[in-house]
Amino acid sequence: MHVLKKKIINEILKKLELVPLIERGFIFYSSKQCIIPPIGELLFEEPPGEVHIKYGYVMGESYYVIKIASGFSNNEKNGIPNGQGMMLLFNQKNGLPLAILLDEALLTNVRTAIAGQICAARFSNEIEMIGILGTGLQARMQVKHLKEITKCRKLIVWGRSNKKMNLYRVDMEKLGFKVELARSPKKLASKANLIVTTTSSKKHLLNKNDIMKGTHITAIGSDTPEKRELGPGVIKNADLVIADSISQCNKRGEIACAKKDGYLKTDNIIELGQVLSGNHPGRENKMQITVADLTGVAVQDVQIATAVYDNYIRRKYEI
Amino acid sequence: MHVLKKKIINEILKKLELVPLIERGFIFYSSKQCIIPPIGELLFEEPPGEVHIKYGYVMGESYYVIKIASGFSNNEKNGIPNGQGMMLLFNQKNGLPLAILLDEALLTNVRTAIAGQICAARFSNEIEMIGILGTGLQARMQVKHLKEITKCRKLIVWGRSNKKMNLYRVDMEKLGFKVELARSPKKLASKANLIVTTTSSKKHLLNKNDIMKGTHITAIGSDTPEKRELGPGVIKNADLVIADSISQCNKRGEIACAKKDGYLKTDNIIELGQVLSGNHPGRENKMQITVADLTGVAVQDVQIATAVYDNYIRRKYEI
Repeated sequence: MHVLKKKIINEILKKLELVPLIERGFIFYSSKQCIIPPIGELLFEEPPGEVHIKYGYVMGESYYVIKIASGFSNNEKNGIPNGQGMMLLFNQKNGLPLAILLDEALLTNVRTAIAGQICAARFSNEIEMIGILGTGLQARMQVKHLKEITKCRKLIVWGRSNKKMNLYRVDMEKLGFKVELARSPKKLASKANLIVTTTSSKKHLLNKNDIMKGTHITAIGSDTPEKRELGPGVIKNADLVIADSISQCNKRGEIACAKKDGYLKTDNIIELGQVLSGNHPGRENKMQITVADLTGVAVQDVQIATAVYDNYIRRKYEI
Repeated sequence: MHVLKKKIINEILKKLELVPLIERGFIFYSSKQCIIPPIGELLFEEPPGEVHIKYGYVMGESYYVIKIASGFSNNEKNGIPNGQGMMLLFNQKNGLPLAILLDEALLTNVRTAIAGQICAARFSNEIEMIGILGTGLQARMQVKHLKEITKCRKLIVWGRSNKKMNLYRVDMEKLGFKVELARSPKKLASKANLIVTTTSSKKHLLNKNDIMKGTHITAIGSDTPEKRELGPGVIKNADLVIADSISQCNKRGEIACAKKDGYLKTDNIIELGQVLSGNHPGRENKMQITVADLTGVAVQDVQIATAVYDNYIRRKYEI
């Protein structure tokens, strides 16, 4: 069994073409070429924490993958990253364990950022200003990955803490962005036509009337039944809602919250893999409001873990 | 992160007092002192395989534990054990990974055998003859562990393959048993007053009229909704049925099969931890038929993994 630490994983990642890899994963998922059971969840009260177990496999491929990812919100106070994680690869034919990727949540962060990039590239109009809700790790990583698909370097950010907003501004200016701090999520939505939501809020931050025509929202932060960033009616009013997994988003994320609000018709909801495979056109005109609800699907983990491991083995044995 | 291989785990196991450890686990479980989510399951068709993810924690203890255990029934043909497995320990306070126990299913096999021993000690009458259905690894391990709680050295076995029955006889004779081969499960049940069922059968092997008064059955083999070794009426007719976990046995194992047969009253069913904690008397007279339905609860894995890891750390740092 191979043990890969974060440093080597990080080196390998730089050599991989991740976008087509993750896109293929979503296509596999939506065309039912993979087995992805419901997410396993373990909750802790004191100190508060949550563990998600995401697992599955692409049929006919070599491995099955199990990812263990946790978030303990008090960690930061003790100088430990809130997010922890690892991925495990096993032989799909006999169950033998092959590798443990001690990525400390790096792979989850990367595959999540890539999914955001894919959605922005597919669904946003020409980006005039990027709006980011939140000032944490994903708020940074999304922007780094957006640089690859747009020339827009105007960014507006909103976060609860002024101190963190200012730190965020410094970091994003280093990346070449002109950064504005928003007084409110509403103000942000009045300026940005691409909004990426990355907080762990349990109270919604954006109202349906805040959203301009032609906006695309990628909702990243909510991945449980409780978390939400989009208020009642945002999902309902959108011309097109794109779920990474409809079955998963029915239980967690923004679509689940919209269902709890009483929005049960949901015929504006499609799956990301349907667009990526060419079976759905995606955005149809510049006036449409589109929302991508990304709760994180195990097939993304399967794809990225497989690519990292295959590359590792090839290098090791110089195949 | 510590990586413990099977050899060191095996050495550590010899030093541990496992019975009270596993008993405490069942008591924690039945008194709701632990969090054990439903089992995660991943199935494979070609070649056939199943992966079970069992996980959870005892509240207020140090670790949470995730176990990954698989069974690929074609492995044996290729010289690889069907059962594979590992356990992972994480810090319950911050999610940091602490250890991976590469036990290759050893810990699962041991904690399962111990649960069988606990049930035989608690629920059987004085054992006159041990009856074992099946000739595999658990059929051997159960007997090894039964030696510690009974002077009975008479054993009757039934298996589908004569060859395997004969190999089994040789092995059990080495352990000091007088071994008889049964022509049928029915014949076995007419002679043994402790029956341990260890096959992966999907068709029942024992009928309700086969079982003698005063018999205790420990049903180990069935741990999915499909597998069953006890025929319609065995659970219903028993004077006392002991589940390792009622909620889990309602979905998988012999009780789940009895429910599918239409047995919905189930007021003869209690939980093992209730007896171990002294809240239920268990067997009340020598005539009763008792059945323990063991589907394997994650708290057993939490207990054994914790003990192995704590011992490893103590030795390593000579605390």
